[in-house]
Amino acid sequence: MIPRYSRPEMVAIWSPEARFKIWYEIEAHACDAQAALGVIPKENAAAVWRAKDVQFDVARIDEIEAVTKHDVIAFLTHLAEHIGSEDARFVHQGMTSSDVLDTTLNVQLTRAADLLLVAMDRVLAALKTRAYEHKDTVRIGRSHGIHAEPTTMGLTFARFYAEMHRNRARLVAAREEVATGAISGAVGTFANIDPAVEEHVCKMMGLQPEPISTQVIPRDRHAMFFATLGVIASSIENIAIEIRHMQRTEVLEAEEFFSPGQKGSSAMPHKRNPVLTENLTGLARLVRMSVIPALENVALWHERDISHSSVERAIGPDTTITLDFALHRLAGVVEKLVIYPENMLKNMNKFKGLVMSQRVLLALTQAGVSREDSYRLVQRNAMKVWEQGADFKTELLADPEVTAALSPAEIEEKFDLGYHTKHVDTIFARVFGA
Amino acid sequence: MIPRYSRPEMVAIWSPEARFKIWYEIEAHACDAQAALGVIPKENAAAVWRAKDVQFDVARIDEIEAVTKHDVIAFLTHLAEHIGSEDARFVHQGMTSSDVLDTTLNVQLTRAADLLLVAMDRVLAALKTRAYEHKDTVRIGRSHGIHAEPTTMGLTFARFYAEMHRNRARLVAAREEVATGAISGAVGTFANIDPAVEEHVCKMMGLQPEPISTQVIPRDRHAMFFATLGVIASSIENIAIEIRHMQRTEVLEAEEFFSPGQKGSSAMPHKRNPVLTENLTGLARLVRMSVIPALENVALWHERDISHSSVERAIGPDTTITLDFALHRLAGVVEKLVIYPENMLKNMNKFKGLVMSQRVLLALTQAGVSREDSYRLVQRNAMKVWEQGADFKTELLADPEVTAALSPAEIEEKFDLGYHTKHVDTIFARVFGA
Amino acid sequence: MIPRYSRPEMVAIWSPEARFKIWYEIEAHACDAQAALGVIPKENAAAVWRAKDVQFDVARIDEIEAVTKHDVIAFLTHLAEHIGSEDARFVHQGMTSSDVLDTTLNVQLTRAADLLLVAMDRVLAALKTRAYEHKDTVRIGRSHGIHAEPTTMGLTFARFYAEMHRNRARLVAAREEVATGAISGAVGTFANIDPAVEEHVCKMMGLQPEPISTQVIPRDRHAMFFATLGVIASSIENIAIEIRHMQRTEVLEAEEFFSPGQKGSSAMPHKRNPVLTENLTGLARLVRMSVIPALENVALWHERDISHSSVERAIGPDTTITLDFALHRLAGVVEKLVIYPENMLKNMNKFKGLVMSQRVLLALTQAGVSREDSYRLVQRNAMKVWEQGADFKTELLADPEVTAALSPAEIEEKFDLGYHTKHVDTIFARVFGA
Amino acid sequence: MIPRYSRPEMVAIWSPEARFKIWYEIEAHACDAQAALGVIPKENAAAVWRAKDVQFDVARIDEIEAVTKHDVIAFLTHLAEHIGSEDARFVHQGMTSSDVLDTTLNVQLTRAADLLLVAMDRVLAALKTRAYEHKDTVRIGRSHGIHAEPTTMGLTFARFYAEMHRNRARLVAAREEVATGAISGAVGTFANIDPAVEEHVCKMMGLQPEPISTQVIPRDRHAMFFATLGVIASSIENIAIEIRHMQRTEVLEAEEFFSPGQKGSSAMPHKRNPVLTENLTGLARLVRMSVIPALENVALWHERDISHSSVERAIGPDTTITLDFALHRLAGVVEKLVIYPENMLKNMNKFKGLVMSQRVLLALTQAGVSREDSYRLVQRNAMKVWEQGADFKTELLADPEVTAALSPAEIEEKFDLGYHTKHVDTIFARVFGA
Repeated sequence: MIPRYSRPEMVAIWSPEARFKIWYEIEAHACDAQAALGVIPKENAAAVWRAKDVQFDVARIDEIEAVTKHDVIAFLTHLAEHIGSEDARFVHQGMTSSDVLDTTLNVQLTRAADLLLVAMDRVLAALKTRAYEHKDTVRIGRSHGIHAEPTTMGLTFARFYAEMHRNRARLVAAREEVATGAISGAVGTFANIDPAVEEHVCKMMGLQPEPISTQVIPRDRHAMFFATLGVIASSIENIAIEIRHMQRTEVLEAEEFFSPGQKGSSAMPHKRNPVLTENLTGLARLVRMSVIPALENVALWHERDISHSSVERAIGPDTTITLDFALHRLAGVVEKLVIYPENMLKNMNKFKGLVMSQRVLLALTQAGVSREDSYRLVQRNAMKVWEQGADFKTELLADPEVTAALSPAEIEEKFDLGYHTKHVDTIFARVFGA
Repeated sequence: MIPRYSRPEMVAIWSPEARFKIWYEIEAHACDAQAALGVIPKENAAAVWRAKDVQFDVARIDEIEAVTKHDVIAFLTHLAEHIGSEDARFVHQGMTSSDVLDTTLNVQLTRAADLLLVAMDRVLAALKTRAYEHKDTVRIGRSHGIHAEPTTMGLTFARFYAEMHRNRARLVAAREEVATGAISGAVGTFANIDPAVEEHVCKMMGLQPEPISTQVIPRDRHAMFFATLGVIASSIENIAIEIRHMQRTEVLEAEEFFSPGQKGSSAMPHKRNPVLTENLTGLARLVRMSVIPALENVALWHERDISHSSVERAIGPDTTITLDFALHRLAGVVEKLVIYPENMLKNMNKFKGLVMSQRVLLALTQAGVSREDSYRLVQRNAMKVWEQGADFKTELLADPEVTAALSPAEIEEKFDLGYHTKHVDTIFARVFGA
Repeated sequence: MIPRYSRPEMVAIWSPEARFKIWYEIEAHACDAQAALGVIPKENAAAVWRAKDVQFDVARIDEIEAVTKHDVIAFLTHLAEHIGSEDARFVHQGMTSSDVLDTTLNVQLTRAADLLLVAMDRVLAALKTRAYEHKDTVRIGRSHGIHAEPTTMGLTFARFYAEMHRNRARLVAAREEVATGAISGAVGTFANIDPAVEEHVCKMMGLQPEPISTQVIPRDRHAMFFATLGVIASSIENIAIEIRHMQRTEVLEAEEFFSPGQKGSSAMPHKRNPVLTENLTGLARLVRMSVIPALENVALWHERDISHSSVERAIGPDTTITLDFALHRLAGVVEKLVIYPENMLKNMNKFKGLVMSQRVLLALTQAGVSREDSYRLVQRNAMKVWEQGADFKTELLADPEVTAALSPAEIEEKFDLGYHTKHVDTIFARVFGA
Repeated sequence: MIPRYSRPEMVAIWSPEARFKIWYEIEAHACDAQAALGVIPKENAAAVWRAKDVQFDVARIDEIEAVTKHDVIAFLTHLAEHIGSEDARFVHQGMTSSDVLDTTLNVQLTRAADLLLVAMDRVLAALKTRAYEHKDTVRIGRSHGIHAEPTTMGLTFARFYAEMHRNRARLVAAREEVATGAISGAVGTFANIDPAVEEHVCKMMGLQPEPISTQVIPRDRHAMFFATLGVIASSIENIAIEIRHMQRTEVLEAEEFFSPGQKGSSAMPHKRNPVLTENLTGLARLVRMSVIPALENVALWHERDISHSSVERAIGPDTTITLDFALHRLAGVVEKLVIYPENMLKNMNKFKGLVMSQRVLLALTQAGVSREDSYRLVQRNAMKVWEQGADFKTELLADPEVTAALSPAEIEEKFDLGYHTKHVDTIFARVFGA
C-alpha cells in the first residue's frame, strides 16, 4: 500500500484494529450460537459482549503473539484480559483459527467491495453527466489513431459509462463470490462444532455459509474476485488512455483540470501534463498484477496449505486500496475534465472535408458510377486536399465528372454532420434508458 | 492449438469454413433487414440466400485475399461468384468489416462457451457420482500436507463439485458477456446503417445488440470471458493436484485408470504415473496465460486500434480448445479414477491413533484438567506412538492420570470415526440439494 | 502458431521432421559414444548412421505411436525399420526418453535463438541506418505526450537501437541458458549410462552438458529464456507505440510504407492505418504471455513431473515463431518508414515558439530577474501565444521588461535549434561507437 | 511491503531518509561537476557539501511538498534551509527532476541487488553444506511423484545449489542492467547540461552513464531486472515444494526445524507443518507478480510518460524486500532442515525391491531373454510384491525361469545401491568444482 495512492476509508478496513474487531464479533456471535445449542453456558456467552466497545490494543496483542507465535491465540489471550479468563474459557471452542481468519478476510473483502461500489457510482455519475453535457459535441471518430468518421464526445462518455456499468454488475457479482463465511472446524467436517454456529455467525456478519469448506474457504472465490478487479482496472486504463490522447499537444481536445494558480501551467500553458491519467495507467497495472497470484492460490494441497496467506496479506489490502483510489481519481478527472469543442472541430477539419471521402465514394457508386471510376474521382480530388491543402467539397463541386453524377445539393449533403449524429439519441436511450 | 490437446467439435468452431459460414449468415440477415427497411431491393436480399448451402471454398478466398489484401472483401468477392455480382452488389452495404468480424467472434465464443458448458456438465456428473459413491469412505484430512482429522473421500469430490458448480455459473455469465453483436458502421454511430439491421442480425444469430459500440465491440467483455476461463482452469489444477498427491507412491489412495493390458504397468506396478493430471496442471497454465493479454486488449485507442486482433486470433481458439480438452480429460480421469479405501485407512493409521490427539486434548480440558496438564498428558503418550510405534489409545487407557479424568468409554469414544462423519449428510444436502 | 504470423524458417525448426532428425542424431551420437566405451559393438553403432539421410516418415511414426502410446518408442521402432532390428537393438540403451526429449528441446531453442539473432540484427541494421539518416532531423521531444524541448528523429532511432542492442546481448545470454543437453538416465544419476556419452552427444549437438540434471534439464533455464523473450517483445511494443503515435492524423510525422498502388490509400490519403505496428503491439502481448507459465514450470515435483511438457509444446514454437515474425515485421517497418521532417517542424511550431519558454525563463533568472518576476514575464507573453496565436519570440522582443534583462541577440539565441542538437554527435558516439 | 515479510536492511534502502540522502548526493556531485566546468561558482558547489551529515527532515519536506506539489522542488527548498538560499541557488541547474529520480531509483535497485546477492550467498552456502553432508544419503528418486530409481539427498541439494548458482549469475547481470544513471536534461539531449556532469555523478554514485536516455532511463533495463527476480522466485518455489513434499506425513523424509519447546509440536508430534516453505511458495508468487507490470512499463510514450512511476513505487520496494526476506527464510530452512535418512530408506523399500524392476528387466533382455518374456518374468514376480507384500529379490531368486537367465550373484547385483551412486562424485565435481 502506497500512502499517496490510498484513501483512509479503504485503508481503515484493513487496519489491525478493524481486523481484531471482526475477529471479536465472530467469536462473540459464535459463543451466542454455542450457548443457544447448550454447548456453553449462556452467561459465559453473554459475558463476551462486555468487550463490545473495547478498542483492542494492537501493541499488546503483538506483544503476546511474540511469545505464543500464534496470532489468534494472542488475540484470545488479550480478550481474556478484558472479559476475565473464566468467562473467556469458552470462547473459540470447537473452532479452528482458519474459521476466524477466513471469515474475517471475506468480511473485509465485502466491505472493500462496498466501498468500491460507492467509488464506481461516483465514476458512473460523472460519466453520465459529461455524456449528456457533450451529447452533441461533434468530434472525429478515429480508428487506428486515424481520422475516420464524425462521432460525438457524448458518445465517448456514454460508452465508458456502459463499460463501467458492466463493471459495476461484475463487481456486485464478485462481492457475492466472497460473501461467505465458514465455521466448520479443522478440516471442514463440523466434527467439533455444529453447523448452526456457522449459520448464526454468517447471518450476523452479513455473509452466506460456505456450503462446503475444508479448513479454508475455497480460493476460486477469491480468484474470481481479483480477476474481476483486474477487468475493472483495465477499463480504467481504457478511459485514461483516451484522455491522455485527447490532451496531447497536437490533439488538445481535452485537458485534466488545472487550478488557475497552479505553478508552471500559465508560464508554460502548453505544458499541462495528463499526470493523473498517466498515473491511472500505472495503477491499472498494479491492480491487474494481483490476478495471476490469485489464480495460483486456487490449487491448495488437500484440505489447505498456507501458501495463499502471504499472497492475500499483500493483495487483499493493496489491490482494493489501489483500485478504490484509482476509481476516485478517475471520477475526479472526469468530473473536472476541461473539454475543447472548438479544437475538436479544428482537428476534424485538418484535411478539409477529407473525412467525408468515404461517403462521397459510396454516393458515386450508388449513383451508378462504376467502383473503379468512383475511386478515381474521389482520389484525384482527395489528393488536392492532401497535397495542396484544398477544400474537398469545393473541389468536388468543381469537378464536372463528379457533378455529372451528383447534384451540388447531393454533394453538399455528404458534408452534413447531422448525418453522423442522427442516432445519438437512440444510442443514449440504449445506454441510459429512455 | 496443439492437435493432441484438442477435440474436433471445438476445433470445428474455429475452422475457416465455420467462420465464413457465420460471415455469410450475418451478411444475409443484414440484407433481409436492409430490404425490410427498403434500403435494398427485396429480390436482391432474397438472392443472397441462394448460397445458403454453399460450403465456401477457403482456398479460393485465400487466393482472392492475396490480391485484395482484405479478408472481408475477398469473401464478398467469392460470395459474388456464387450469387452473381448483380445480386451481390447490395451485400455488406453500410457495414464495416468489423461489424462482421466482431459479431462473428462473439458467435464463435458463445458456441465455444456452449461446448464448454457441456464439458463442464460431464465433469459435474462425474464428480457427483463419485461423491455419492465415496460419501462414507473415510480418509484423513490434511492441512499443510500433514494429517489433521478424518474426513471422507466423498467430501473431497463434493467440494470439487461445488467449486465446479460455481464455475458453471461463472461460465454462463461469461457467455452472456460475449453474446452481443454490433452492426453499427465505421465508428459505431449507425450513420450508414439503421440500428434495425443490427437488431435483426443479432436476433437471428442468437445475440443481443451491443448497446454502444465503436468500430468494435468493447473488449472488457472479452477480458471478463477469458478471466473466467482462467478461474476455471485454476479449479482444474486444484483437482489435478489433489489426484497427483493421492497417486504418489507413499500415499497411493487413488490412481488414474490404467487399462489392464497397458504396457509397463504390470511389469512395474508401482510405476503408474499420474500423467493425465500432470498434463492438466500444464494445460491449466496454458489457459491462464490468456488472461493478461485479454486484459491488455481492453484499452484500445479511440474508436479502435487493431492490436487486439492478433491476440484474439491466438487465444480465441487456443484457450477454448485447450480448456474444452482439459475439462473432458478431467471428466474421464474422475469417472475412472481407481480409489483405494483400504490405503486411506492404512495412511490414516500410520501413527496409530495420533490424529485423534487433539480430540483427547480437548476432552481432558473439558474434563477439568488444566491446559498445561492436558498438554503434558497427551504429549507423553503421543511421543510413545511417534517414537516407538505404540498405539495411542492403548497408551491412554494405560495412563492412570488420563483415566483419572476420562473413563475408558470416553477415551474409546474419542477414536470413533463416526464423530467426524456425522455431518456428511448435512454437507451433501447443502452441495447437491436435499 | 498462426500461419499469418510466422516465417517458414522458424516453423521448420519445430516441424515433426526436424524433431525426429534431432532425435535420430542424438541416438546415433550416443551409440558412437557407447561403442567407444565398449558398451555396445562398434558395428552396431556404425550401422545406425545408415539412416543419416533418411527423411523420417511422420505418418508412419504416428501410426506406431497410436499402438505403443509412447512417442520415443514409436520413433525407435520406425528407426529399426530403416536400419534393421538387429542393429537397432542397441539404440537408446541406458537412456531415458527425457534424455532425448529435453536435449532435443534445447537444440530447437538454440536454433530458434540463432534465427532470432538474425532477425534482431536486421532490426539493428535498420535502426542504425535510419538513425544516421535522420541524425539532424529536428522534432519536438515530448514528455507526457506534451511538447517539451527539441530533439532529433535520429536520437529516437538511436535509443531504439541501444535498447535493441541490449536485447541482443540478453538474447545471446538466453541462448546460453538453454544450450545444454542431458543424457543422464532415469533420475539423473548416470546409473545406466556413462557421463562420457552425455559429453559426446552434447559436443556433437553444439551444447554443453548439463552439470546436474534429474530426469529433466532444470526449468529455470527455460524460464530465463522466455522471460528474456518477454523483455524483447516489450521493446518491440515500445517502438511500435512510437510509430503509431507518429502516424496519427494530428501528428503525421511518419507513416508505415504504403505501396503507391495500394487500394484505398490514395482515394482516402488520410486513412493510412499503422496496422503493422498495431499488429506488433498485439504480437508483443502474445510473446509476453509465455513468461508466467514458463516461470510456473520451474517448480516440478521431485526429479520431474510432466506438467511442463504441454506448456512447452505450446510456447516453445508459438513464442519463438511469433517473436521471429515480429522482429522481421518490425525491421521492415523501420526500413521503409516514411518520415515527414516538414511535419515535425510544423508540429513543433504549433504554438509558435512556446516550447522555448523554459529556456527563456531560465535565461531571465540567470540574468538576475527574480524567479517570481521571471515567471510573470514569461507567462504574460506565453499567454498571448496560447490564446491569440501570437509568436513567442516576437512578443518577447517587444516586451520592455524582458528586453531590459535580455538583449535581442540573447533572446534570439534562445530560439536556436542548434542549442538542442549540439550533443547529438556525442550521443551517437556513445551508442554506435566512435 | 508487509512488515512480517521484510528485513530492516532492505527496508532501509527504500526509506524516505535514504532516498533524500541519495538525492542530495546526486545534486552535490552535480554541483561539483558544474563548478569544474565553470558553469557555477566553485564556492557554491563547495557550500552544498555543508549538508553532508544532515539527516533530512522528511516531515518538513512533506510539508513543503503539500504546498509546491512537487517532490524535487520541495526537497531543494528544504536543502536551501540547510545551506542557505544564496548557495542553494545553483543546485539542480540544467537538470530535470527525472535526472534525480531515475538515477536514485537505480542506486536503490543496485543496493537492493547487493543485499540480494548477500542473501543468495547465504542460500548457496547452506545448500553446499547440506549437499556434502548428505552426499551419500540414499533416497528414492521420483518422477511423477512415483518411485523411480535411487538417488541421494546430496544430489537434491546439489541441483538446488547449481540452480541458485545460475540465479546468482543472473542477478549479477540484472544488477548491471540497472546500474546506470542519467543527468541528461528535459528530453535527454544534454541541451542544458554538459555530459561531463552525468559522467561525474555516475562515477561517484557507482553507476555507468546511460548511453542514451530520454527524460528517463529506458525501462527495458528494469523489466529485465524484475524478470530476473521472477526467475529467482520460481527457484525458491522449486526448493520449497521439494521440502513440503518431504515433510508430508506419508513421506516424512525431512522437516523444517522445530525448537524442542515449541508449543503443540510435542503434544501432536505428527502435526509439524512446513509453514515456512508454504509461506515461501506464496512469497514466490508475490515476487513473480511484478514481472508483467515491469514488462508493461517498457513502452512509454515518446520521451516519457509517467505511468511507470506508480508501478515502480510499489514493486521497487515490495519485490526486493519480499525476495530478500524469502532468500533469508529459505537459507534458514535449509540450514536447519531436519533430515531423516532412515525414513528415506523405509520409503524406498515400501514395495520391497520393486524400484529395481527396470534393472532386472534390462538384465534379462541383455542376458538374451526376449523382450516379451522378460516382461512376463518381471511382471509375475512384481505382482507378488505389489499384491502380497513379498520381497522382489527373494521372489526372483526363487523363480527358475529367472535364474535360468541370471545367476544369483547377478540378481543380487541388481539390488546394489552403489550402482546408482557411483557417479555422485563426478556430479559433485561438476557442480562444486574439483
